[in-house]
Amino acid sequence: MQEIRYTPIGTVRSPFLSPKNMPVQPLQGRGIKGKIEIYPEYRECLRDLDGFSHIIVLFHLHLSKGWKPVVRPHLEEMERGLFSTRSPHRPNPIGLSVVRLVSVEDWGMNIEDIDMVDGTPVLDIKPYSRELNGFEEEKNGWMKGRIGKLRDKKPY
Amino acid sequence: MQEIRYTPIGTVRSPFLSPKNMPVQPLQGRGIKGKIEIYPEYRECLRDLDGFSHIIVLFHLHLSKGWKPVVRPHLEEMERGLFSTRSPHRPNPIGLSVVRLVSVEDWGMNIEDIDMVDGTPVLDIKPYSRELNGFEEEKNGWMKGRIGKLRDKKPY
Repeated sequence: MQEIRYTPIGTVRSPFLSPKNMPVQPLQGRGIKGKIEIYPEYRECLRDLDGFSHIIVLFHLHLSKGWKPVVRPHLEEMERGLFSTRSPHRPNPIGLSVVRLVSVEDWGMNIEDIDMVDGTPVLDIKPYSRELNGFEEEKNGWMKGRIGKLRDKKPY
Repeated sequence: MQEIRYTPIGTVRSPFLSPKNMPVQPLQGRGIKGKIEIYPEYRECLRDLDGFSHIIVLFHLHLSKGWKPVVRPHLEEMERGLFSTRSPHRPNPIGLSVVRLVSVEDWGMNIEDIDMVDGTPVLDIKPYSRELNGFEEEKNGWMKGRIGKLRDKKPY
């Protein structure tokens, strides 16, 4: 089986030092401020990003240990197939968060709506665009009507 | 520097055998049908996914070779900082596409809106939810007003 190797481009700085009481999605982390420190060799890549209000952050869920094919999602009672959930315990533990970009600085970025633990290795930054990745007619399967719960129940 | 290792969970089957004339975003690939074959050990993870109309596919851009901090985006004239673009030539070449889920099968999934080359290694599948990752008030920086161009100009 082919092995794929990546090297972090930066690190998350977050008020959450452990996953305990941490928001499980940016929706739960609205208003929580943090930073992404970008390593010097990648800082030039940040040019032109300051015009975007939101960015997609791909990160390595470095505290994830192993995975099971079926899991009980956060705040839920029924077990669901892993790929139908956002559980951090995945075969390839890559996290995806769309966060608010507050400012681009010479060391990286100030961000808001954090659901990442301090020290999380960052793999990639992409500009967010609803036009590219939004669908009005989506169906949400088992999540339908359950996401409000997440927004309303702050863990911190 | 920490090295992160991932192993593909499956493979994309696409009518596009090379990046030449391939859609550069699902927006350009609307209606194009393909498959994601999931390897046997991960198939149980697909449970409950069939209720979702769209999925997020994270994949390894295996044909990407190297990166530059500043690039000229597809159909554009001005160069832009790499992280403000969706260029496949990134420090960690992870692709992100939100595609239509047509059906879940025992070998994987039929999908639509393909912008991936045949044989692309798949890293992760997540359920798409606009409620989790959508923002009405977004700003699109240099992309503003330019995405329609992408939709209108079919490469195939």
